[in-house]
Amino acid sequence: MDMSKLAARLAEAGQSHILQFWDQLSPKEQAEMSLDLTSMNFMEINTFFKNAMKTSGQCSQEKVDSRMEPVPREVLGSVTRDHESLKEWEEEGLRCISENKVAVLLLAGGQGTRLGVPYPKGMYDVGLPSHKTLFQIQAERIRRLEQLAENQHSRKCCIPWYIMTSGRTMDMTKEFFLQHKYFGLKESNVLFFQQGMLPAVDFNGKIILEGKGKLAMAPDGNGGLYRALGTQNIVKNMEKRGVSHIHVYCVDNILVKVADPAFIGFCSLKGADCGAKVVEKMNPTEAVGVVCKVDGRYQVVEYSEITLATAEKRSTDGRLMFNAGNIANHFFTLAFLKEIVSIHEPQLQHHVAQKKIPYVNTQGQLIKPGKPNGIKMEKFVFDIFQFAKTFVVYEVLREDEFSPLKNADSQDGKDNPTTARYALMSLHHRWVLNAGGNFVDENGTRIPAIPRHGPAGTVTPEVSQNLKDGTDLPIKCEISPLVSYGGEGLEHLVNGQAFQPTLVINESGVHELVKNGL
Amino acid sequence: MDMSKLAARLAEAGQSHILQFWDQLSPKEQAEMSLDLTSMNFMEINTFFKNAMKTSGQCSQEKVDSRMEPVPREVLGSVTRDHESLKEWEEEGLRCISENKVAVLLLAGGQGTRLGVPYPKGMYDVGLPSHKTLFQIQAERIRRLEQLAENQHSRKCCIPWYIMTSGRTMDMTKEFFLQHKYFGLKESNVLFFQQGMLPAVDFNGKIILEGKGKLAMAPDGNGGLYRALGTQNIVKNMEKRGVSHIHVYCVDNILVKVADPAFIGFCSLKGADCGAKVVEKMNPTEAVGVVCKVDGRYQVVEYSEITLATAEKRSTDGRLMFNAGNIANHFFTLAFLKEIVSIHEPQLQHHVAQKKIPYVNTQGQLIKPGKPNGIKMEKFVFDIFQFAKTFVVYEVLREDEFSPLKNADSQDGKDNPTTARYALMSLHHRWVLNAGGNFVDENGTRIPAIPRHGPAGTVTPEVSQNLKDGTDLPIKCEISPLVSYGGEGLEHLVNGQAFQPTLVINESGVHELVKNGL
Repeated sequence: MDMSKLAARLAEAGQSHILQFWDQLSPKEQAEMSLDLTSMNFMEINTFFKNAMKTSGQCSQEKVDSRMEPVPREVLGSVTRDHESLKEWEEEGLRCISENKVAVLLLAGGQGTRLGVPYPKGMYDVGLPSHKTLFQIQAERIRRLEQLAENQHSRKCCIPWYIMTSGRTMDMTKEFFLQHKYFGLKESNVLFFQQGMLPAVDFNGKIILEGKGKLAMAPDGNGGLYRALGTQNIVKNMEKRGVSHIHVYCVDNILVKVADPAFIGFCSLKGADCGAKVVEKMNPTEAVGVVCKVDGRYQVVEYSEITLATAEKRSTDGRLMFNAGNIANHFFTLAFLKEIVSIHEPQLQHHVAQKKIPYVNTQGQLIKPGKPNGIKMEKFVFDIFQFAKTFVVYEVLREDEFSPLKNADSQDGKDNPTTARYALMSLHHRWVLNAGGNFVDENGTRIPAIPRHGPAGTVTPEVSQNLKDGTDLPIKCEISPLVSYGGEGLEHLVNGQAFQPTLVINESGVHELVKNGL
Repeated sequence: MDMSKLAARLAEAGQSHILQFWDQLSPKEQAEMSLDLTSMNFMEINTFFKNAMKTSGQCSQEKVDSRMEPVPREVLGSVTRDHESLKEWEEEGLRCISENKVAVLLLAGGQGTRLGVPYPKGMYDVGLPSHKTLFQIQAERIRRLEQLAENQHSRKCCIPWYIMTSGRTMDMTKEFFLQHKYFGLKESNVLFFQQGMLPAVDFNGKIILEGKGKLAMAPDGNGGLYRALGTQNIVKNMEKRGVSHIHVYCVDNILVKVADPAFIGFCSLKGADCGAKVVEKMNPTEAVGVVCKVDGRYQVVEYSEITLATAEKRSTDGRLMFNAGNIANHFFTLAFLKEIVSIHEPQLQHHVAQKKIPYVNTQGQLIKPGKPNGIKMEKFVFDIFQFAKTFVVYEVLREDEFSPLKNADSQDGKDNPTTARYALMSLHHRWVLNAGGNFVDENGTRIPAIPRHGPAGTVTPEVSQNLKDGTDLPIKCEISPLVSYGGEGLEHLVNGQAFQPTLVINESGVHELVKNGL
């Protein structure tokens, strides 16, 4: 290592303070730190900061509001309003899959910090009867979908799975997949790559130290995807495989329809290069970003950027005018991604997120600040919507497709392991009912179809203890993705039958766990 | 007291077991018990039981489903879809109020059992800055509405308030109103009356003893209203006062628009004798009863009675077909109520609710059963929809008008004091924004209009502790009903101004509690 060269680079970038504790570090710490620093481009980081601060706060609420237009009906596909087209879209999607044109790309760079676990979110077990993790559920959905496409088109096919981790989650993620034999997928079709990291900086752009020899580093946002797609040759890999349609989604949604053929088919038939799956925003104050047009270009306007007057606007049909709620679930063509990587990504500014960042002060003491003391710089996956030539929006039902895992059970009643588990079991309960099955309690009495506490509602442990009554639910029911991807293929297993929960349907058959004394 | 006569009446009704511990009772207990029993009609109770059991379970899910029809568009008024008519409806309602034609009727018979308090729900303080109780909030809304009608029509008017309590809540309720000088209303315009009680019975119709000398009594459901209207001469009192339009609502909804002029005006202009205010049911599995037609007559179908297939049905516009969510908020003409009381009420069957009812066994020991051991017999306030000649439905926004207080904070994340308080503060926050005011944090930075945790979401105490950040909300804001009934009249107080929460606006002015150091 050439310390003088590094020191010169830092001095040039005005970041020499990073080395203020250098002499106090052990040789090992010095080696580690210099390794970290050598690969970093400080001038580029300074430019990121300058540009990010320039655009940050530039668009005040009023300004964005007056420029917002809703998604026009003609670019919208809706599972509730276009019911007659669903079959056609799904068939088109399955055809694309059968031709090996479809890949899925998982955003899994986030850590389980808010969830309270020291490992990647995808490894989380929300407590289903099977104790499957999010990774396993998603892997099995891919396997089932390949099978459905193969059955329909009588040819072997594969859906490659690109998994973006961050520096912090890569090793554990890879190890987990290896341990579990890639959940039955071919190892060569599961491809890991890593998003970039950026240092947190203070409000003057100075890099923050979280230890005497350690920079405060954070992933560069889920929009770090586009840089990583280029630097790690993922686009090239897709091209080589003949992939043309890519479904991008976030690891934390337990209901995610990975490579959803209806969504892909809709985008494909519309000739879209970019598409967003959304759920309807129902109430003006729902804290969700909305897909809309600003100055004629598509983008996501975050809930914190919108005025109440705009959030409350309604169309003549009574719906909220800006109701396309973003759920980080997107479609891209490979051609579009290539253009993004080569042309547009480098020009995208980072967004600024003010954070409380623990730091060491000049005495070398670790301080946990009480209010924001610096920023993290992030790009967002939806930043590229503006470059689409044909953008479409696909609206689905929240209770069928979106239940993100964000918080620990103890912390908040929302988006936690319990709500995720209930959302999945409620969906599977509905699949059974719609396939002609029914549920009874221990006395043989039919259980109502709608439980007192739906998956949308919040159920705390105390309440769930009342579930034994048989009328207070959700009903415990889990169907393996290897048996059904979206509710299909269950009639012959359940039609006309009455089950006592817990009901588990998997490859080995239909099981009532209570009756078996389990 | 004539014990032999009482014993004979009990024997005739097959309820002699009630007296099995008679000899063990003290003279005082004997006196109390015989007083209780003397006023009861056991043969009638037996008939109630027989009829209730006959109809209970008669309508299986399939049967109701196939007979259900949605509310036709022409009988529906909607705040989101009929925006252009709202002003006209409201003016009609204010005119009716100014002519002393409008009364409100409060259903307040329930106890705060689930809420965990030993007093009536209306006396509950959800922790607003003002610490006003539900009763006070409602009383002040009535006062403000009288004032609005008076200002508009230049004549004095009054909205009489009929308050139905139960045997258990009457004394405390009356005492509370007296103590608080009827919250500024004229005592003569606040009229209390009492709904009936019925004993709980076992599955064979035998009355259950909860003590050796004490029957297990329960109110006869909010539909007990109609019997009470007759027996306690309430209908006559309304007639004498010239009341013709009655708004009936439930005490637990902190957002209730008491005597809502738009709702009353809509019903009046449509010539309706009966109307239901509803909120849109958004998701198929939402646990809410829906107003619909069954065999051509209006009724509420409870969520537990509907099949999933029917709950999931959608109209061509994508909305749920059965989406008129009942919130126990109704309009009746006096003529209609008179007909109900004199003709229809006696013929209405009780509904059966299976309950776990603590009882004394033959050894005199108190037993708390682990599963349902008996039934309570109840009528529902909406049982009379079927008799309406012109029935209308009025759809409002849940986040503006419905947030019921049902559970204790510790018990469930839903419908508790915190959600009620947040719902009210969020509404008042929106009033301020829409009147041109704004909120800033302690650094003077504008706070986004949409908080991270909306009132619809559930916020546990841990989360609310983060509110200090200024970006995590709801914003603390309370506006006295004496200043604004529904958001009107605030422009001159807030327009163009920036407030730091807590903001309180009441008769004495606009107060920022933080700045005042309170």
